[in-house]
Amino acid sequence: MNGAVNMNDPKISAKELDSLFKPKSIAIIGASSKDLSIGNVIIKNLVHYGYTGKIYPINPKEPEIRGIKAYPTIFDVEGEIDLAHVIIPSKFVPQIIEDCGKKGIKSVIINSAGFSENGDEGIALQKAFLDTAKKYGVRVFGPNCQGIINTDPQYKAYCDFTFTFPEPGAVSIVALSGGVGAFIMQSLFDLEIGMRYYASNGNACDISISDVLNYYGEDEGTKAIILYTEGLSNPLEFMEVVKRVAKKKPILCMKSGRTEEGSKAAASHTGSLAGVDISTELIFEKTGLLSFTNEEEMCQASMAFSTQPIPKGNRVGIITNTGGPAVIATDELVSAGMQIPALSERAINILKQTQLPEATIGNPIDVVATGGGSHFRSALDVLMDEETIDSVFINFVTAPFTDTDEVARNIVEVNAKRIKPIVCNFMTNMSLERFQVTAKILKDGGVPCYSFPTTAAKALGALYRYHKVQNRNIGEPKTFSVDKSKADSIISTNKNIDTFLSSDKVYELLSAYGIPVADWRLVNSVDDAIKAAKEIGFPVVLKADAASLVHKSDMGGVAINLKNEDDVKRVATEMKNKFNASDLKFFIQKFMPGGRELIGGVSAKKDLGHLIMFGIGGIYVEVLKDVVFKLSPVTQVEANEMLSSIKATKLLDGVRGEKGINKKSVTEIIQRISQLVTDYPQIQEMDLNPIMAFEDKAFVVDARIKI
Amino acid sequence: MNGAVNMNDPKISAKELDSLFKPKSIAIIGASSKDLSIGNVIIKNLVHYGYTGKIYPINPKEPEIRGIKAYPTIFDVEGEIDLAHVIIPSKFVPQIIEDCGKKGIKSVIINSAGFSENGDEGIALQKAFLDTAKKYGVRVFGPNCQGIINTDPQYKAYCDFTFTFPEPGAVSIVALSGGVGAFIMQSLFDLEIGMRYYASNGNACDISISDVLNYYGEDEGTKAIILYTEGLSNPLEFMEVVKRVAKKKPILCMKSGRTEEGSKAAASHTGSLAGVDISTELIFEKTGLLSFTNEEEMCQASMAFSTQPIPKGNRVGIITNTGGPAVIATDELVSAGMQIPALSERAINILKQTQLPEATIGNPIDVVATGGGSHFRSALDVLMDEETIDSVFINFVTAPFTDTDEVARNIVEVNAKRIKPIVCNFMTNMSLERFQVTAKILKDGGVPCYSFPTTAAKALGALYRYHKVQNRNIGEPKTFSVDKSKADSIISTNKNIDTFLSSDKVYELLSAYGIPVADWRLVNSVDDAIKAAKEIGFPVVLKADAASLVHKSDMGGVAINLKNEDDVKRVATEMKNKFNASDLKFFIQKFMPGGRELIGGVSAKKDLGHLIMFGIGGIYVEVLKDVVFKLSPVTQVEANEMLSSIKATKLLDGVRGEKGINKKSVTEIIQRISQLVTDYPQIQEMDLNPIMAFEDKAFVVDARIKI
Repeated sequence: MNGAVNMNDPKISAKELDSLFKPKSIAIIGASSKDLSIGNVIIKNLVHYGYTGKIYPINPKEPEIRGIKAYPTIFDVEGEIDLAHVIIPSKFVPQIIEDCGKKGIKSVIINSAGFSENGDEGIALQKAFLDTAKKYGVRVFGPNCQGIINTDPQYKAYCDFTFTFPEPGAVSIVALSGGVGAFIMQSLFDLEIGMRYYASNGNACDISISDVLNYYGEDEGTKAIILYTEGLSNPLEFMEVVKRVAKKKPILCMKSGRTEEGSKAAASHTGSLAGVDISTELIFEKTGLLSFTNEEEMCQASMAFSTQPIPKGNRVGIITNTGGPAVIATDELVSAGMQIPALSERAINILKQTQLPEATIGNPIDVVATGGGSHFRSALDVLMDEETIDSVFINFVTAPFTDTDEVARNIVEVNAKRIKPIVCNFMTNMSLERFQVTAKILKDGGVPCYSFPTTAAKALGALYRYHKVQNRNIGEPKTFSVDKSKADSIISTNKNIDTFLSSDKVYELLSAYGIPVADWRLVNSVDDAIKAAKEIGFPVVLKADAASLVHKSDMGGVAINLKNEDDVKRVATEMKNKFNASDLKFFIQKFMPGGRELIGGVSAKKDLGHLIMFGIGGIYVEVLKDVVFKLSPVTQVEANEMLSSIKATKLLDGVRGEKGINKKSVTEIIQRISQLVTDYPQIQEMDLNPIMAFEDKAFVVDARIKI
Repeated sequence: MNGAVNMNDPKISAKELDSLFKPKSIAIIGASSKDLSIGNVIIKNLVHYGYTGKIYPINPKEPEIRGIKAYPTIFDVEGEIDLAHVIIPSKFVPQIIEDCGKKGIKSVIINSAGFSENGDEGIALQKAFLDTAKKYGVRVFGPNCQGIINTDPQYKAYCDFTFTFPEPGAVSIVALSGGVGAFIMQSLFDLEIGMRYYASNGNACDISISDVLNYYGEDEGTKAIILYTEGLSNPLEFMEVVKRVAKKKPILCMKSGRTEEGSKAAASHTGSLAGVDISTELIFEKTGLLSFTNEEEMCQASMAFSTQPIPKGNRVGIITNTGGPAVIATDELVSAGMQIPALSERAINILKQTQLPEATIGNPIDVVATGGGSHFRSALDVLMDEETIDSVFINFVTAPFTDTDEVARNIVEVNAKRIKPIVCNFMTNMSLERFQVTAKILKDGGVPCYSFPTTAAKALGALYRYHKVQNRNIGEPKTFSVDKSKADSIISTNKNIDTFLSSDKVYELLSAYGIPVADWRLVNSVDDAIKAAKEIGFPVVLKADAASLVHKSDMGGVAINLKNEDDVKRVATEMKNKFNASDLKFFIQKFMPGGRELIGGVSAKKDLGHLIMFGIGGIYVEVLKDVVFKLSPVTQVEANEMLSSIKATKLLDGVRGEKGINKKSVTEIIQRISQLVTDYPQIQEMDLNPIMAFEDKAFVVDARIKI
């Protein structure tokens, strides 16, 4: 991933980034008089967009560029420079950054390519200019990037070579890919949503996506954030930042590369490692981001977020003046987990008095195509008063025989009170002037309008998702009392990496962390095996244990359900003769049939922590792949979610007369495992297969741990 | 549902509908001089749209309306009238239809409401005018409907009161709901797709959706059809028509009311029966329609269908000039079942010679933002020649520093050859004149352009889905040799409806249709039970059978796994004493443990046939609801699809050392069941639970049949 070099940077404060997003003066180093060159387009864009600060084109030969006085070097500029655009060949960049440092420039945007995306030479160049930048305290945005845009009329800083000139608004965008960032910005422009800030930081060698998100989080003008990425370079920093920001304002995000092929395509253009990455989605979930898999849906949803309050629940009231679109909307709302409750008697009585005789009184309220402003208004007022309604969905077709402006004015008046969120599927012909007027009333009144019922319903669904995010408190991970010194001694004696712990160490380690395991002994002889089996109590499992026995089970080194001393003696003797290994030991364990077979697992993720897996074992995992993942550390709430989100979750409650399992024991095992791997990041993999769960308790029956 | 009265009508020929879609003269009965009234708007629309035929406003008082000579009655019109709009109160409609008949008018559109949607009186009125219409051979469109639009410059017939004036095109629309129809038409207009015909027929008392689809099917100008419905009034007629049409041209369709709540909303505005209706989706599947759950996606897809050939397979070549959007597109294409194969060495060599040095040669081909017309062209030519590529996806961002028109012209030139389908995600700012020119080149060249990579990828995915439809031949249902006279005698003796067949009749009926059942006997005494068990062979199942015993199992009337004569004697005696019923009989059956427990089921659907259900029994159906449905008659191909489309399908092949089942036996049972219920439509319900499947054979072990 880009920007891996800045992992140990201190977080950049919002104040420090003001020089980037609110520059009072900008130098364009590599300004060019050549039309369509980036060094020319950036100046053109700044001027065209009405940048309020000073523009200093830097060019060794030209006296002026696009009618603006140019300077041979930045040192020839008399005043202070907040921000510099760098658009010169990569090999000259380290020297220019040195100059910028000397001149006291606070931030630079390096549009030039030819750095870490370009092999060893580029990586060296990037390191070189970054060291210089640190020396002088210059903040670097990029390289190999587009830049930033600030739509605030006080600045109007269009520091980018793109071609969309957005209206001011409340949505800020940050995108790893400039191509995707640009079309998201364009989409907001087309939807007339308005935008606050834009940032696309390419290689992100210094100022990271997290720094930008932190800045947006502190910005009062930003009501909602759109994030596009193909992966995260510093996931822990990212999590820390967005956890904080996501509680304050919605972050709508999309991570592409969710298929094997997509992730390959991402790797080919960013140089990142291929491989489908489920951890980014888990980070989004853990930190409360609203993840989308469809960028159009994400842009459409941002319109609702930029104008509407967040609903307090999932109950929608629908007002419609045409039947079919209400059916479509209902389908989508319900699919998004929302309800369309019946109205109260009080509401129905009011509607009976205020609606046309041919109206349908219910939910949906069909005011019919001839319904006018007063009919929409009474329906809106009723729904705003209705305690069992959390949000309002409107289908409004501009029937030619009604005063559509009056309808719009009534919607706007109610919307202005911001009691409950409103979204509107506005079905009209925008090429007719008459309806453009109606549309403008709605738009100016901050009513989010969509052209399709499903699209509008999805946007309301996204508002509801954010309600759930705000109300989902996963809590802090529990810290169980464990025998850490015992665990330390087990882990520390295992110096080799990429090795599996021996069986006895596995169970000792689990026990040290209070994870119930089936009772066991490790012994050296057949006689001791018999003795151990008697201590544990029959039936038992017997496993041969020796360095040479990796696939015990396939080699006949595992025998289950040994019911008495004779069984143990016979089997142990057979194994001894068969394997004939000098280091042969016997692992004896309580055999516990009849429970529900569960599985758990852990895998370490570089720079992040561990993925914790849970599922139902046996054919469920083999046939149905019925497993779920969370990121460590896993809290009680998350552990509960793991149990309830597998497809066959009902099985845990018992079906067909079978007993259910003790879920509390299982969630505790998950959390203790989480605590173990959080304490020992060097644990690379764990397989807990199976965990046997009974009505009263659960035990880890077989486990492997790789350090 | 609307239009149930026309179930026995003869199909209306395409020729007969020419008077509706290609009228040479139109009378507006109920023409009004009042602005915004429907009787005025329709005349305004006809004139505004440039209708090429004669317009006859009919109004008893006005000498002219909107400057057109008006007539007191249709009899005052001298010439012939092809089509009449009827916009008068419902009670006058029967008389007016009589007049239309006498005048020789061929088709009428009844815009007026107040018929079958309005209770008994309305139903009577509808029946009255329909009888009259039949007497004179007048075809009726509506009532309670919008009307039709024909965009053909030869006619320009805008027989509707809506407000969107579409350009001619190749997509025809038919919609039950006028509201949805109108916004679909608007969407095609906004997307500049162009439209051929529009029809929204409201109550559909005579001319049905099927008749319209048949008309569109015969129309050479219609390349693709969009259908919206909330249910089907005459599903068999519909199936017969669309099966034929869907092979000739794609029918993109959406049925709303897919949730319980959505179907309630549909019921409230159409008066149809509530209840989620899965059979319509099964009809779509069986007849080869392309079903959508998102109307925006459907409209967007129609753009690709109206201009592009159908791909011959699922292999996509991607050309992009920006990285991120290619990643997003790849994700979506792969999710839609498509592949992004590697290119041949030959292709790579050509690309290496023709692309910029910084281009990425592979699939995607990244021609980079500075790539121009020649680079796009060489990439396109390579993909058109590449044998392993079936379609082409283009990401084209209008980089300000390239000649975007030249790029567009090259895409258009290749597109014109129609070798393989092309879709284009065209990322631009349409408010800039420069890019409007580029867009127009693409549009005029018939290149389907989208604003989001996912949206474009979904459209290409829809083209691929139609490829699969064209290539999916479900074949004809097999006719197995069965003992029909035996079955006749069983069914005919069961005169009561809503009753369950007795156990012996159930098994006799199944056996008559060659469906293997576990060997069984029905006897009257304990001694005969023992004798029967010996004949069948142990172990056996014993069930008490008497009219009073409905819930046998709960009442202790079922005993399984009886291993010898003593067991049978003891259990049968206990049951005899316990139930003490004079009609008590014993049902003895072979007990067959150890197989895979499957379930089958049938339920009759009014006016359609039967739904056939299949799944894996036990916890799979209880916990995972892992069942699939098809419509009878089920062919071999469909039966195979049933087995392979359940989630736990792998279980049928055997996992964890378990043996797989004989799938052929199971698919034969499904087909024989299908033949049975097709032969006896009076069968209302069947439960085959369980069907026990073994490695060599499968048997129905327990079954209920309701007539």
